[in-house]
Amino acid sequence: MALTRRKLLASAGIGAAGVGLGAGGYLIGHDAAEAETAESTGSVPFYGEHQAGIATPVQDRLHFASFDLETESRAELRELMEEWSVAAREMTEGKMIGTPAGSRDALAPPEDTGEAFGLPASNLTITFGFGPSIFDRPGLGLASRRPAALKPLPALPGDELDGLESDGDICVQACADDPQVVFHAVRNLARIGRGTVTMRWSQLGFGRTSTTSRSQETPRNLFGMKDGTANIKAEDGEAMDRFVWVDSGPAWMRGGSYLVTRRIRQVLEVWDRSSLRDQEETIGRRKYSGAPLGEEDEFDPLPLEEKGMDGKPVIPANAHVRLASAQENGGVRILRRGYSFTDGVDESLGELEAGLFFIAFQRDPEKQFVALQRKLGVHDALNEYIKHVGSALFAVPGGARPDGYVGESLLS
Amino acid sequence: MALTRRKLLASAGIGAAGVGLGAGGYLIGHDAAEAETAESTGSVPFYGEHQAGIATPVQDRLHFASFDLETESRAELRELMEEWSVAAREMTEGKMIGTPAGSRDALAPPEDTGEAFGLPASNLTITFGFGPSIFDRPGLGLASRRPAALKPLPALPGDELDGLESDGDICVQACADDPQVVFHAVRNLARIGRGTVTMRWSQLGFGRTSTTSRSQETPRNLFGMKDGTANIKAEDGEAMDRFVWVDSGPAWMRGGSYLVTRRIRQVLEVWDRSSLRDQEETIGRRKYSGAPLGEEDEFDPLPLEEKGMDGKPVIPANAHVRLASAQENGGVRILRRGYSFTDGVDESLGELEAGLFFIAFQRDPEKQFVALQRKLGVHDALNEYIKHVGSALFAVPGGARPDGYVGESLLS
Repeated sequence: MALTRRKLLASAGIGAAGVGLGAGGYLIGHDAAEAETAESTGSVPFYGEHQAGIATPVQDRLHFASFDLETESRAELRELMEEWSVAAREMTEGKMIGTPAGSRDALAPPEDTGEAFGLPASNLTITFGFGPSIFDRPGLGLASRRPAALKPLPALPGDELDGLESDGDICVQACADDPQVVFHAVRNLARIGRGTVTMRWSQLGFGRTSTTSRSQETPRNLFGMKDGTANIKAEDGEAMDRFVWVDSGPAWMRGGSYLVTRRIRQVLEVWDRSSLRDQEETIGRRKYSGAPLGEEDEFDPLPLEEKGMDGKPVIPANAHVRLASAQENGGVRILRRGYSFTDGVDESLGELEAGLFFIAFQRDPEKQFVALQRKLGVHDALNEYIKHVGSALFAVPGGARPDGYVGESLLS
Repeated sequence: MALTRRKLLASAGIGAAGVGLGAGGYLIGHDAAEAETAESTGSVPFYGEHQAGIATPVQDRLHFASFDLETESRAELRELMEEWSVAAREMTEGKMIGTPAGSRDALAPPEDTGEAFGLPASNLTITFGFGPSIFDRPGLGLASRRPAALKPLPALPGDELDGLESDGDICVQACADDPQVVFHAVRNLARIGRGTVTMRWSQLGFGRTSTTSRSQETPRNLFGMKDGTANIKAEDGEAMDRFVWVDSGPAWMRGGSYLVTRRIRQVLEVWDRSSLRDQEETIGRRKYSGAPLGEEDEFDPLPLEEKGMDGKPVIPANAHVRLASAQENGGVRILRRGYSFTDGVDESLGELEAGLFFIAFQRDPEKQFVALQRKLGVHDALNEYIKHVGSALFAVPGGARPDGYVGESLLS
């Protein structure tokens, strides 16, 4: 039995729950009890080499929004990013936007809408990205600064995309351990941006629960399967450098990353009618333990070469974990940061409209997400149970310098 | 300065956070620290005189669903309520539905979809109710058992209802301190009911945050105002008996209550543009402290008779708190249990579709919710900023006896 990741971390004195990760570096070996207390109420620095919300340990809640730009003035876009960065910094510090509550002008609208007043920062991170479309707008004059890697995603096998839930000029990813805090963040950025941007689509998501965050167990997706076992760990700096952080192309993207979102509808009713064995063979893992088929522990390596008594691979050829594995993709990996969602009832089917809001960060979308999805979209056994209905790509610049703003070296 | 409610509770040794309320009674003076730990992971008994989820202290998350009945067979409806009650009891105890995980038949679909496996009960409560429409179905033969109080809600001033988000034959209110747990509950009940019921509409909501639950501060709604200050407290047994629990009419409703839901869209953009003073005068309370206008503490009584130097009432004649107050409604009160929601972008407006999913429990809908809303719908200053877009009424029977099921005395 292989040594599990949790055991490895424990033996290195790095209980994953005890790792507090700021934008600029790591706190390692932090007292675990203290970190647990801090975990849901702490704050994550806004300024740093990288934007927060990428390597930051995944918070419990997501509010993601995509905006269309209503202007072709680069000065107005710059002003927006300046104002957004100030507000984001204030909110991530657990402060209200603008003037403190007590000294506000009663005859003016409040600068902060107030629903997070009294709540802690809750590890709020706000991550900004730019869609390929802003480089096509002549008035902005950004064409020469477009990175080669920022091309709209090609049509991919299995796409059933809704244009109204796809793409956009600018994205905001707000993550925190409190749904009211992420709602407040997106709502106030939308308010500040009124006149310059219009919200195109948004998505609320839930992921880890307060319990799993503390115990650092891998959360389960809405198919009831552990999801994220083989994901890049944010504390694995080498993998982050190799697969996530951009270190080439235009200067404004150094220390940044490319963000792909896919709104993946999970067809729960069909899944729920399939047998436990079918479910496990579709994924390639046991439902309850999360262990790869043929193994016993969730963190055991995938036995991709192993065959059963019937001569067939223990992990089927079309199992999701096999097709998505680094081993079968020339070593390629991505950093996933997905959240489950439900948006009520799909009236045409009379069933819950629910699924996974998939978020992945990578250095090169073509070589990473697109290459993986070209394979998965055709062969993955999971396709019987999912539909990709939304899609977007954003270039996420490096972090803002103190008192600077996100995108400064692109827009100045 | 009046003694605040929190001070009163503290002096009586009943820190509100330290009150653990089971379906059958109260634990008073419970050690506060222990209750805080238990709070988000505890379990609430399913069986009891009353259904849980009414007097239970409000949990952080809601998943509410309304179902249409696909059968006119009372036996099938009875079987559904039996199966639902067993599953609800298992889930509220933090167990999986049916056979334990390890001993499941691999060739059959799992009896439990699994996404809450490993998560604690998280204070899950599941509350069932019957809509007026089931008493109109001749095949069910329930017409003679219809309570006089269960009439469809009349048209009310300001209604802008969407039929697809209103009404229904049976409702399920799932509340817990974990979004995955409430999602799991509704999804599995829908799965169990397939063939007998179809989901008509559903609503996910967030309310208290883990922080406010612990500190027992009044949560803020999406207008940034404290919401629920003057609500009936579940621990106020006298008010619960007087305003919430039914003790007349057909036997099956004894110990039950009537549940009104209203999906109230909050027009955030208009609200955000109004001045702090306008916002405070609309509600009749200070934005940050929550104190009534003219007072200093959130829990001070409303100074409804007090006039300012200009001779006008300190709390305006059309302020929400005045019009909704017991004092101006012949002493009438309701038990509210609302949750905020956001369901993405309203594409026609390019702004967040968000609001309050209002839930109220009462003995007599006509004399309580309907009477209040007849007044509020016409005069309330808040109407400028809200729209009632969904509406439903359900009769919530008393609790199930051990090993019985909800609705047993109606359906047997």
